[in-house]
Amino acid sequence: MGTAVLGNTKMKTFEELESTVRSYSRGWPTIFEKAKGYKLWDVDGKAYIDFFAGAGALNYGHNNETMQDKLVEYIRNDGLIHSLDMGTTPRKEFLECFNEIILTPRDLDYKIMFPGPTGTNTVESALKIARKVTGRDTVISFTNAFHGMTIGSLSVTGNSFKRSGAGIPLHHTVSMPFDEYVEDQDSITYLERFLEDSGSGVALPAAIILETVQGEGGMNAARLEWLKKVESICERFDILLIIDDVQAGCGRTGTFFSFEPAGIKPDIVCLSKSIGGIGLPMAITLIKPEYDQWGPGEHNGTFRGNNLAFIAATEALSNWETDEFSQAIQKKAHILSEAIEAIINKYPELNGEARGRGLMQGIAITKPGLAGEICAEAFKRGLIVETSGPNDEVIKFLPPLIIEMEGLEEGLAILEESIKSLIN
Amino acid sequence: MGTAVLGNTKMKTFEELESTVRSYSRGWPTIFEKAKGYKLWDVDGKAYIDFFAGAGALNYGHNNETMQDKLVEYIRNDGLIHSLDMGTTPRKEFLECFNEIILTPRDLDYKIMFPGPTGTNTVESALKIARKVTGRDTVISFTNAFHGMTIGSLSVTGNSFKRSGAGIPLHHTVSMPFDEYVEDQDSITYLERFLEDSGSGVALPAAIILETVQGEGGMNAARLEWLKKVESICERFDILLIIDDVQAGCGRTGTFFSFEPAGIKPDIVCLSKSIGGIGLPMAITLIKPEYDQWGPGEHNGTFRGNNLAFIAATEALSNWETDEFSQAIQKKAHILSEAIEAIINKYPELNGEARGRGLMQGIAITKPGLAGEICAEAFKRGLIVETSGPNDEVIKFLPPLIIEMEGLEEGLAILEESIKSLIN
Amino acid sequence: MGTAVLGNTKMKTFEELESTVRSYSRGWPTIFEKAKGYKLWDVDGKAYIDFFAGAGALNYGHNNETMQDKLVEYIRNDGLIHSLDMGTTPRKEFLECFNEIILTPRDLDYKIMFPGPTGTNTVESALKIARKVTGRDTVISFTNAFHGMTIGSLSVTGNSFKRSGAGIPLHHTVSMPFDEYVEDQDSITYLERFLEDSGSGVALPAAIILETVQGEGGMNAARLEWLKKVESICERFDILLIIDDVQAGCGRTGTFFSFEPAGIKPDIVCLSKSIGGIGLPMAITLIKPEYDQWGPGEHNGTFRGNNLAFIAATEALSNWETDEFSQAIQKKAHILSEAIEAIINKYPELNGEARGRGLMQGIAITKPGLAGEICAEAFKRGLIVETSGPNDEVIKFLPPLIIEMEGLEEGLAILEESIKSLIN
Amino acid sequence: MGTAVLGNTKMKTFEELESTVRSYSRGWPTIFEKAKGYKLWDVDGKAYIDFFAGAGALNYGHNNETMQDKLVEYIRNDGLIHSLDMGTTPRKEFLECFNEIILTPRDLDYKIMFPGPTGTNTVESALKIARKVTGRDTVISFTNAFHGMTIGSLSVTGNSFKRSGAGIPLHHTVSMPFDEYVEDQDSITYLERFLEDSGSGVALPAAIILETVQGEGGMNAARLEWLKKVESICERFDILLIIDDVQAGCGRTGTFFSFEPAGIKPDIVCLSKSIGGIGLPMAITLIKPEYDQWGPGEHNGTFRGNNLAFIAATEALSNWETDEFSQAIQKKAHILSEAIEAIINKYPELNGEARGRGLMQGIAITKPGLAGEICAEAFKRGLIVETSGPNDEVIKFLPPLIIEMEGLEEGLAILEESIKSLIN
Repeated sequence: MGTAVLGNTKMKTFEELESTVRSYSRGWPTIFEKAKGYKLWDVDGKAYIDFFAGAGALNYGHNNETMQDKLVEYIRNDGLIHSLDMGTTPRKEFLECFNEIILTPRDLDYKIMFPGPTGTNTVESALKIARKVTGRDTVISFTNAFHGMTIGSLSVTGNSFKRSGAGIPLHHTVSMPFDEYVEDQDSITYLERFLEDSGSGVALPAAIILETVQGEGGMNAARLEWLKKVESICERFDILLIIDDVQAGCGRTGTFFSFEPAGIKPDIVCLSKSIGGIGLPMAITLIKPEYDQWGPGEHNGTFRGNNLAFIAATEALSNWETDEFSQAIQKKAHILSEAIEAIINKYPELNGEARGRGLMQGIAITKPGLAGEICAEAFKRGLIVETSGPNDEVIKFLPPLIIEMEGLEEGLAILEESIKSLIN
Repeated sequence: MGTAVLGNTKMKTFEELESTVRSYSRGWPTIFEKAKGYKLWDVDGKAYIDFFAGAGALNYGHNNETMQDKLVEYIRNDGLIHSLDMGTTPRKEFLECFNEIILTPRDLDYKIMFPGPTGTNTVESALKIARKVTGRDTVISFTNAFHGMTIGSLSVTGNSFKRSGAGIPLHHTVSMPFDEYVEDQDSITYLERFLEDSGSGVALPAAIILETVQGEGGMNAARLEWLKKVESICERFDILLIIDDVQAGCGRTGTFFSFEPAGIKPDIVCLSKSIGGIGLPMAITLIKPEYDQWGPGEHNGTFRGNNLAFIAATEALSNWETDEFSQAIQKKAHILSEAIEAIINKYPELNGEARGRGLMQGIAITKPGLAGEICAEAFKRGLIVETSGPNDEVIKFLPPLIIEMEGLEEGLAILEESIKSLIN
Repeated sequence: MGTAVLGNTKMKTFEELESTVRSYSRGWPTIFEKAKGYKLWDVDGKAYIDFFAGAGALNYGHNNETMQDKLVEYIRNDGLIHSLDMGTTPRKEFLECFNEIILTPRDLDYKIMFPGPTGTNTVESALKIARKVTGRDTVISFTNAFHGMTIGSLSVTGNSFKRSGAGIPLHHTVSMPFDEYVEDQDSITYLERFLEDSGSGVALPAAIILETVQGEGGMNAARLEWLKKVESICERFDILLIIDDVQAGCGRTGTFFSFEPAGIKPDIVCLSKSIGGIGLPMAITLIKPEYDQWGPGEHNGTFRGNNLAFIAATEALSNWETDEFSQAIQKKAHILSEAIEAIINKYPELNGEARGRGLMQGIAITKPGLAGEICAEAFKRGLIVETSGPNDEVIKFLPPLIIEMEGLEEGLAILEESIKSLIN
Repeated sequence: MGTAVLGNTKMKTFEELESTVRSYSRGWPTIFEKAKGYKLWDVDGKAYIDFFAGAGALNYGHNNETMQDKLVEYIRNDGLIHSLDMGTTPRKEFLECFNEIILTPRDLDYKIMFPGPTGTNTVESALKIARKVTGRDTVISFTNAFHGMTIGSLSVTGNSFKRSGAGIPLHHTVSMPFDEYVEDQDSITYLERFLEDSGSGVALPAAIILETVQGEGGMNAARLEWLKKVESICERFDILLIIDDVQAGCGRTGTFFSFEPAGIKPDIVCLSKSIGGIGLPMAITLIKPEYDQWGPGEHNGTFRGNNLAFIAATEALSNWETDEFSQAIQKKAHILSEAIEAIINKYPELNGEARGRGLMQGIAITKPGLAGEICAEAFKRGLIVETSGPNDEVIKFLPPLIIEMEGLEEGLAILEESIKSLIN
């Protein structure tokens, strides 16, 4: 009770001055002051393990020292902070490093576009260019997809609460079943039938857009063979394949791009969140050269030149010069999988289902509200973890990729205690 | 020729690796390295006067010392860089300062929303909430409006090149004539007639959205009485009035909000660009409390918590604690007006027309291409200035508000020389 | 009172079994049994003068003897009643007569299309082909236009009650001001400015669609010079001009096509209503040969081969073999104009305004509801006349073109009595 | 060759004067002059068996004597031909008979609406009222549905050639798999999953619209249990069920409504084609009283009062006073089924598949073009029969319901000969 009163006082500014749209400050009612690596501290000095990583924007953890040093140095030298798409040294260096460290070794040939510095903006740019080069208007997305909150991206997003927030009907898109959407039914056959049949009512689309692992949609990981099949459908029907790797990319699933193990080469790739390295707004759209048919400034934005983000982004790329980082993620992912399996087995009352891939995993819990209660309890006990899924029914584990074994174990321990306290 | 070759080498990275969508690096083919106040320097050490101000995102000039110090201090203390809409000290302080320094003294009562950190995102959020609270789908915008590049904002944008980039028809909007759009015809009478007449084919809209000075549209400044009339129409028909102050706000026209001298109180205000103080991505949407009917997270975004921007933004607000800053802008605006008038009179070959208001002015030049040539020439001579308008026919002056008299005069001198060299 | 009870009993079937959408049976609560020329009789033997002409579908009056004879003969000979677009003799004869009697003498070269047999269907076909041949999606229509009730036609209709009946937002259209829509403002300049300015927010349209006299919209007759200007705008911008002559065509304004006196040649013309001669469902779409780019069956409909209608239609065309019919209409139109002028002058309380052209005229009355009351009173006194306009504020005179002078005078006398009885 | 030349001369008028949209006069290049029962004769006196029945508009055959007599009598008595929705005796009698003979015995309670006299118009009215009463905009339709050619109906139609004819993207609709659309996959589970899951991307629709047997779509007959399941889904989710019985209704499948054997009670039923008895344009929309929330005239149309059609329609209803007619249809349907089965077995080269239900059956033939060639050959041999399906791959048998056994057998014999001549 004392805490509640304290909490109220603490959050007063937000409650009084900010719009009711605020969300995280409701579930985690404190003021955060400091963060380093996989830990955060609030104004009361309480420490938290981070299983959230800025919703995937902090794959490299909080306040990486080298990034900090480089930012400070750049600021101290009066480097351009804001530059739209003018030439600057940080932009040049990012372009070169991204090409050398990420694209070339993976035998990928993409033009790099800087849209506005947010996930929804890279998606909007991808949809635009796909429609332009094909001359078609329809885009196929999948059930429980999340691609962003501006009207273009929202049109390919599945969640009905978010969609109805548009206040207008959302057009030019068709929602198809994601991998394993309906039990015992093959979503690929469906998709193919609709495209083959000229009487299906579904026009040949400009593009198919998908997340290989649906983060907001409930940690649904598409099987690699499903991804391959979608790619061949795209090839067969001359449809552009757009991978929205905003959350699943930048190493989240164990490889830089989430689609690497499937062996596919999307026509367009959307990156944001952790591409900026330290959590600063940044986004890029990768486009196969033959589809890079933009006119100058045909898609633009004031903040597409965030130089501090470029500097941290370039530093972050150094993690990918060898295989080590990737292997470390996969190792931790394996440990996380086993821990999830153990929890599910140990607490059959949860009726839990393991979800996800890499360091992007979750536990789906059918009992309405329970997943949320567990996260709330975990917060009290010092763990930052949130839910996802259409009914907030999935506990979503998204630790920073740099988390140490100790932190992973500590976080899992808090989670288990939280579960125990609620089901007993 | 030597320069051309050098230029080619210099810009190679951008030409080879970046998408053809790049624009400013074409018109200003150099690599910028340093910036301070109203000046920039490129890698060759060449200095430029800034009459562009990051397209309005750098009203407070480049690299303000106090902002730099505060950013460095925060970084050094491991403050949270990225926080979505979690509580953090910089977010709390920004909210409090904005309320005390900006809203309260102007007798404005708004809830503050943090959408994604870009202009188009604040516009998208404004359109959504207006549609939600009214239950209507149509939004009226004006000829030559520019509100952003994502589908929602693009739908209320006038420019046909940008609109056609959508690749889909843009719906749920009606374009009405801006102030003084058709000579000798009164656009208010038109607007009113369409709204009064139930047979007009234009549905009662959720909102009317406008810029008081259209920056991208050609520096068209609406008369203050026109703004008042639009406000009364909105009141009469129960339509929400949205002012997009992304470019004209934050002091650009001489007052913090561009609409202050008109004495109106919009229902929703969109701010971005210079709100972040030092050029870091940030945006806010101001909503009258009775219309702040968002559900938690109904509009969200990964980068709505850019703490470095909050810190610089709060520091920037200190400029508005007294009237001094505002008066200084107005004084410089007056000088700029006179200089523009003088140029127009001195060079009748330009057939120039003065446009704009405050430090947001321009010269419209009818001869196709000439405005662009003048800007290209000015760049060579050390002045950064760009065009706007549907046919890029307006030279657009957007110097940082903190520009010193010396810089203003130097820039104007370069401009005049550039004109002279081209028309003789 | 006795009548009311009787009325109730009489209309019981309709009230109990029919949908609430029924309209005319409410305003004229009787059962009609017989009709000839310009007269109708109800089951009680009461006679009515017809100033309504089936909303323009009975220009040639009721039950023309020759048409009756030809229909009966065809039926008796087991001629095909229903034939889609198969070859039949009546269809062949109609095509030939329409070409010889209507098109050739007017130096008009059109391909004749048979869409479904209703006004809205010819409009839908016109919009489709215009969009197909131009590859553009927008169509410009005018304030207070009425083009039909199916979604395509409704999208170019102005009336908000009818539009909102769609239950969905109506897209791909822009509403522009009709001739003399706003006092002292020139709607042509306005239209031209929107088309010229690439920043206007209005895309280059596939077509402009208009009625030369807006029947449902309030009997607004465009000036002939306005029509000419619209045609030149269409030529200048390569936009198709569609004239919806469903109500104003077939002689209604004194010439076969309403646009003849303006000397224009629309790209597409929509005809229905009286084209079927005796009131049977029929419609045709006239398309300049260069725009007749339909694939076989690309627009079709079960009832596009109504042979009884073809027979009556062909017979009706014989009226146009000489100038006599046209001159007689114009003479009656002149008398009608004078009578309207006289009524307006004699009853200044009406604050009446003369509207329309040819035998398509009206009196606009500002006092809410009065026009409707006058029509209700006229019905009781034996005159069938209805209102139009966005607020049902116009008494609409639409007598059969074959009305005799005696009938015209008798009808006008009833109208005047009705007015007198209501304003005194 | 002689025939070809003759044909050319014969069809000259159509080729020269009519739009290229004409279709049936291409496949059946002759001029028809007379028709009676199940037979037609052309101008050369050649007779044809009718397996087409005006695309389903001539269920009662050509030129029924009693209908002819009643039409002639009415015409001779100067009865109103055209009456919009004014009260007339034929309209009153139709309403009463339809209620007594059709609705009451089937325990169906519907308000009867007269939209414009075409199939597409009844569908447009159904979609409008469903959207109005639910306040939702989406309508779910099915793969290979055909509901009409105006924009509203076309939006729920599957065929891509017809859809692209719109020239605009078609919105506010979602296409779901019809019964047995994908082999071994259950379309009901799929539909249900999309509706249950709030993240599916498919909004709760206003209505589900379907044909129980898809005529244009390829004679696909939904299983009765599938129809029942769709009805329960509608009930569960509070969605309106619209049955488009334009082609399958009026006895075509053996009962007056095609959905009777499924034991369902749709919320809205669309009827047209054979409702007019003798092939005259007519349509009605049946609406459950609780959903009959139209305002007067909210949907209207000039030709909604086709009195000749009402008279023939009322006469046609007399067929349904006893069970005899229904039993006769079912008997003939059985014979047709057996004949089809026999043909498929006898000519394995066809790789034929039986389709349909009642007197609405077909043979799907996989070899591209073969179905069309068979129909062309049949025409030469005196049988009128057409194809349907997305690739015109189905021979579609739609004889008049009144066809005599002799006619059925003769027609089938011609068909078999045609097949034989083509596959040998």
